[in-house]
Amino acid sequence: MADEDDIFDVVVIGAGPVGVTAAARAVRGGLTAAVVEERLAGGECEYYACVPSKALLWPMELAAEVERMPGLHLRGPIDTAEVLARRDETVSHRDDGHVVNSIEKFPATFVRGHGRLAGPLQAEVVSAGNGIRTLRARHAVVVATGSKPAIPALPGLAEARPWTNREATSVQQVPKRLVVIGAGPVACEMSQALHSLGAQETTVLVRGERLLARAEPFAGDMVARSFRESGIDVRFGRSVVRVERPVPGGPVTVHTDDGARIDADEILVGAGRWPAVDDIGLETIGLRVDGPLEVDASMRTTALTDGWLYAVGDVNGRNLLTHMGKYQARVCGDVIAARANGTPDDAPGLRDTADDRGAPQVVFTEPQVSMVGRTEARARADGFTVRTVEYDIGDVTGAAVRGVGYTGRAKLVVDEDRRVLLGATFVAPDMADMLHSATIAVNAEVPLDRLWHAVPPFPTVSEIWLRLLEQYGL
Amino acid sequence: MADEDDIFDVVVIGAGPVGVTAAARAVRGGLTAAVVEERLAGGECEYYACVPSKALLWPMELAAEVERMPGLHLRGPIDTAEVLARRDETVSHRDDGHVVNSIEKFPATFVRGHGRLAGPLQAEVVSAGNGIRTLRARHAVVVATGSKPAIPALPGLAEARPWTNREATSVQQVPKRLVVIGAGPVACEMSQALHSLGAQETTVLVRGERLLARAEPFAGDMVARSFRESGIDVRFGRSVVRVERPVPGGPVTVHTDDGARIDADEILVGAGRWPAVDDIGLETIGLRVDGPLEVDASMRTTALTDGWLYAVGDVNGRNLLTHMGKYQARVCGDVIAARANGTPDDAPGLRDTADDRGAPQVVFTEPQVSMVGRTEARARADGFTVRTVEYDIGDVTGAAVRGVGYTGRAKLVVDEDRRVLLGATFVAPDMADMLHSATIAVNAEVPLDRLWHAVPPFPTVSEIWLRLLEQYGL
Repeated sequence: MADEDDIFDVVVIGAGPVGVTAAARAVRGGLTAAVVEERLAGGECEYYACVPSKALLWPMELAAEVERMPGLHLRGPIDTAEVLARRDETVSHRDDGHVVNSIEKFPATFVRGHGRLAGPLQAEVVSAGNGIRTLRARHAVVVATGSKPAIPALPGLAEARPWTNREATSVQQVPKRLVVIGAGPVACEMSQALHSLGAQETTVLVRGERLLARAEPFAGDMVARSFRESGIDVRFGRSVVRVERPVPGGPVTVHTDDGARIDADEILVGAGRWPAVDDIGLETIGLRVDGPLEVDASMRTTALTDGWLYAVGDVNGRNLLTHMGKYQARVCGDVIAARANGTPDDAPGLRDTADDRGAPQVVFTEPQVSMVGRTEARARADGFTVRTVEYDIGDVTGAAVRGVGYTGRAKLVVDEDRRVLLGATFVAPDMADMLHSATIAVNAEVPLDRLWHAVPPFPTVSEIWLRLLEQYGL
Repeated sequence: MADEDDIFDVVVIGAGPVGVTAAARAVRGGLTAAVVEERLAGGECEYYACVPSKALLWPMELAAEVERMPGLHLRGPIDTAEVLARRDETVSHRDDGHVVNSIEKFPATFVRGHGRLAGPLQAEVVSAGNGIRTLRARHAVVVATGSKPAIPALPGLAEARPWTNREATSVQQVPKRLVVIGAGPVACEMSQALHSLGAQETTVLVRGERLLARAEPFAGDMVARSFRESGIDVRFGRSVVRVERPVPGGPVTVHTDDGARIDADEILVGAGRWPAVDDIGLETIGLRVDGPLEVDASMRTTALTDGWLYAVGDVNGRNLLTHMGKYQARVCGDVIAARANGTPDDAPGLRDTADDRGAPQVVFTEPQVSMVGRTEARARADGFTVRTVEYDIGDVTGAAVRGVGYTGRAKLVVDEDRRVLLGATFVAPDMADMLHSATIAVNAEVPLDRLWHAVPPFPTVSEIWLRLLEQYGL
């Protein structure tokens, strides 16, 4: 039997941004909560993913902007040491005190240690010094354990101890020669970031025919063009057959299926992520899961019928994006509070509609790829009556004033039956913040005839909206 | 009686972006059109306002971004000659051939000369070489003559031949010492642009207590702080009592009401604009107008009962903004075509709803001021039940990754009765393109409970949306 101190309304396993948000919302709803974390509170995102990667990428983005702008000239290449020092500041030098403080201020209880389920409504926390502590939940346990990088089963790869997002974003010494396996956001972002910071010979190996395969095709094509222009060697349709690293930490050799051999100082794998469901005690509640913990729109796991187990963020496999995880966590914390308090649990804020309808994503490459909702291919596969419009962003006056050669491309995917947007993609430098216009349009299902009255200011890049709607026929 | 060649369905007086758009839309609706212009086709905006001013402002904006970004360093100050050369490119070296070509491609007829009304459904064009040509309109005449800078009646000011937006945006030799009279967008933008390009001693004289008086108060305050930090001397509550310029083109002396005297090389007036209604023949149709030509929501002048006269853009006084004029022109061209064709003239696209509800505006200062819809003061004056939320943009993670000291402020104005946005203001560097999200929300009246499901991507500055909605209580 647990101590009175160890009983909470909600127990959250995982103190990444997602778990912390779930706890915050539950507490805001009048509940007590404990949050368990073995590693740094704040999670992968804050220390080893979104935040440091953007700190490494912005200088490159800005340097490209300067290059396009007559009247401005950089003194020299990017100062890598300064960028790395700034990166360390943005990750708070990997000290999670501020996150722990913020959790305690909710107020919620932070418990350091490895958290795992230990039967219904129960979790145990194993910590180095303090043995095992059992936490009991009155209403719900939330699994927010995130995901882990997937390492493809290629001969010699695991043994070569490749970099993942963690090592790449924590880089102290930029390798001169880098091989990157993968074509997704992490692979693309880190290839460019490290190349801009000194990885002179960067080779990107892509199994398929495109970068960013889940985006509109032109997005990956534009990023690939940018890679090539900057001297990154992108090789499509290439598989790795063998990796050799005879001396740990020494040079690495990658053999590809065309017989080529690439010598490098480091190898980085960006081949997707896998839900972190190992060793979280699912077997103690009779679940055998080797993949995402599936949930309903209120974030409750569908595998249990008694309704006390929730899963939010990467671990539920919906959209492996920090902001979507936090969104799910808001839904989850609120719905747990509503159910605990006996208030209606079906208000609009208590269901996840955005993951299906319009999850936004930005890939912070140069140019940035900003997208929301469905691509054309996905919309067609989902059976919508689709029409699309595209327009060159460089043809908008707002682009010309941003410098010589500022260019890009935009695409809208329209549901012709309802005349609403299903998706939008913008590929252009420094346009991540323009995406929210499309995110609102897609998620609120604003009819095109009303979007027509939302006038973009002249001369901005957002005038692309006018051109796209004109192109559509408005 | 006019020649057959001189009869058109629609005659548009003024080939700025607004007049050209009205003609384009009318032609798209199956009508014939003539567009008359005395000066450069393309208008004030393209050659002497929005476009060149932004070409002069972007280097400053970008230089500030670089200053905040560790790892990047500029070689030296902004190279003014390069910026001016680029400015000349963005205004096509003030050759309007491309605009005339585009008009002819609609196809429409371009007539060069001074256009004025000459009785009902009739206009005459006076040109230097060709005498007077009379154009007759079957359906409508559209006045799109724009506006002219207002020069306050201050002793000696007119005689000193002050710069307006035209001279400031066409600058070839940046004055070392500059006095600016005014506090609106033109005054603010050009003060900073010219200061950044070499006007070392820039003094801005403001009659009231704030810059950008029509914006939320914090916007002007933040711009004023930025002025001061960069060394611009802003003086509030100061009126000009006398201006002296004994030698044309020579130094100018400005005396203010506190007895101070400022010596300068040039004086710039940014004191608003006035509808260009002089000498456009309004008397030939019995109108005496000394101000805006008022129109209904279909852009038809309210002063005439027979419904053939339309006015779009600055001349109707609705919102003196290029993009709003072009929006009005789309409504106008479409509604004229609908009425001429006998199709329904009350479809949603045939009424101007945005001018009242949500006209966006960006002031391209550093920081940029982006705003749409009503300010809090305006919303209260209009009788809405108002609640507002504000948040520091610097506290959003997306701001931290953009460099050291990236900051700003955001405010939403909510109509509590309907829980929709009435207005939004964002003050932050390089956030003009984020505004469109608010423009959609305000114009489409998206309920806050739906905006809650539009998730901003992490880590972008647009995450300010999440913070604002949380602050509101969602």
